[in-house]
Amino acid sequence: MKKVVFFGGGTGAFTVLSGLKKHPIELTAIVTMADDGGSAGILREEFGVLPPGDIRRALLALSETDNEVLLPLFNYRFKEGAGLNGHNFGNLMLTALERITGNLPTAIKEAEKILSVKGAVVPVTLYKSKLFAGLDDGQVIKGETNIDIPKHDGRIKIKKVWLKPKSYINPVAERAIASAEAIIIGPGDLYTSIIPNLLVIGVTEAIKKSKAKKIYIVNVMTKFGETNNFSAGDFITEINNYLGDNILDYALVNSKLPSYWRMRNYILERASAVQIEGLPEKPSPVFGDFLRTRGFVRHDSDKLARVIVSLI
Amino acid sequence: MKKVVFFGGGTGAFTVLSGLKKHPIELTAIVTMADDGGSAGILREEFGVLPPGDIRRALLALSETDNEVLLPLFNYRFKEGAGLNGHNFGNLMLTALERITGNLPTAIKEAEKILSVKGAVVPVTLYKSKLFAGLDDGQVIKGETNIDIPKHDGRIKIKKVWLKPKSYINPVAERAIASAEAIIIGPGDLYTSIIPNLLVIGVTEAIKKSKAKKIYIVNVMTKFGETNNFSAGDFITEINNYLGDNILDYALVNSKLPSYWRMRNYILERASAVQIEGLPEKPSPVFGDFLRTRGFVRHDSDKLARVIVSLI
Repeated sequence: MKKVVFFGGGTGAFTVLSGLKKHPIELTAIVTMADDGGSAGILREEFGVLPPGDIRRALLALSETDNEVLLPLFNYRFKEGAGLNGHNFGNLMLTALERITGNLPTAIKEAEKILSVKGAVVPVTLYKSKLFAGLDDGQVIKGETNIDIPKHDGRIKIKKVWLKPKSYINPVAERAIASAEAIIIGPGDLYTSIIPNLLVIGVTEAIKKSKAKKIYIVNVMTKFGETNNFSAGDFITEINNYLGDNILDYALVNSKLPSYWRMRNYILERASAVQIEGLPEKPSPVFGDFLRTRGFVRHDSDKLARVIVSLI
Repeated sequence: MKKVVFFGGGTGAFTVLSGLKKHPIELTAIVTMADDGGSAGILREEFGVLPPGDIRRALLALSETDNEVLLPLFNYRFKEGAGLNGHNFGNLMLTALERITGNLPTAIKEAEKILSVKGAVVPVTLYKSKLFAGLDDGQVIKGETNIDIPKHDGRIKIKKVWLKPKSYINPVAERAIASAEAIIIGPGDLYTSIIPNLLVIGVTEAIKKSKAKKIYIVNVMTKFGETNNFSAGDFITEINNYLGDNILDYALVNSKLPSYWRMRNYILERASAVQIEGLPEKPSPVFGDFLRTRGFVRHDSDKLARVIVSLI
């Protein structure tokens, strides 16, 4: 079985992983640890644990359990109770497992058993640090949530993001990258889900050293406050800024335009479809219709998985 | 397989169930719903759910999972976090499952699957009511916790306990009692774990109608504020007061005196070993050494299970 390493977070990670899961490959999902909002943020603050949100989503995506209630349970968010309101059950489970087993990687291993997970979920780092963003006008924004849901003027461009204090790669992630035959990056929020992985010391080095085919999946929609008006070329250029030029082999670029009816929900969010413009010579673009046929304008799990499998 | 119904709550229930589990019998654990303290109390207050504490303990006792972390996880109590401190993970899981599935019995069924439970755990009632105690001096105490951990002068005897509003038997419990070949009651806190089951309308009627052998397990220790200086006869008489005379067939009475060294921890708790005195003619007493050989002065799971199995 081909060894595939995936980098990402958020709903993009769920999409890619749940598609790849159906193919005979050995998957390692490396997840970002920069999340500091919501339930995960509270647990991070009060328990000092690493943020469990992206781990939870990756476990859900890779679960092969036939228990029909286990996944809704793991994804359940309490909506009542002074102390519990807003907490996610899966996050609480990962926190309790971390307390019982003594560390996050073992807690994840136990959760993988309970949920019958195919593959492995690996935190990119075990160091705790915070994400910062420097804007074009000189402002510095502290914290993943404050970048993700912008409290600043969302029209001002992000110039640079960094982690503080420094964090170092999880050796398990490093080994997975070294032995991978393919590395998939994205899709997902560029500055809050994707690039935070590349900011961890040792990650870009490990990717560069690896002989794996390196595939970046370009987002289908821009995001206000992060990637306003970004073209496919802008996404790739920005990844290259952090990863280095000539590292990526392929960029998957959606060429199907979503209908007006599906796009109209995005007007209020000030998001738009990513245009095919400004593509650099490398990585080689792979065009295709990667969209879901209905609902949110997002990648389709199965379409993505098929093209990824054909490339590796 | 013989059908056995068990009534109880608290650590006594855990002891009996984890012993009986090892024998080839079909077990139904009927659990009291009067608990209103701690984590369960908060969930009851804020979520309006039935108290999950005794259900959790019964599920743990009957679990046959070979996953080594699942039981510590289900029993884990959060010790940090403003909103989570004191909450029990298993209680949160039952609460989330109740929200997801829509009702407590289905939630318990799902938890039984996750934990690979042998037998069934059935709430005695699905009605929500509060436990009250009338003391000898005329005082009325409201709430299971306030009776269990007495805020009143613990030397004053409990005259009577009742539920308000009235609650009615869960039909699933009723059917289990009707088809049982043996009914086991206790051990456990007399007024807060055992008798609350008998206060539910329909329970004593169902027990009386049942052709099952009815066995009461007398506590090995008295409890300050509930059963000060109670002899084995006092326990049985009080059960008979609520259940009716001549219903019980056997009473299991421990005849092994705990050593001075083990008893000395109980001096501060003002608890003492239950003396064999004042036994009525019926039920037939079954004497034996039912004590654990070390640690807390409690029943031994395996000793109890062996004698129960020999009687039924």
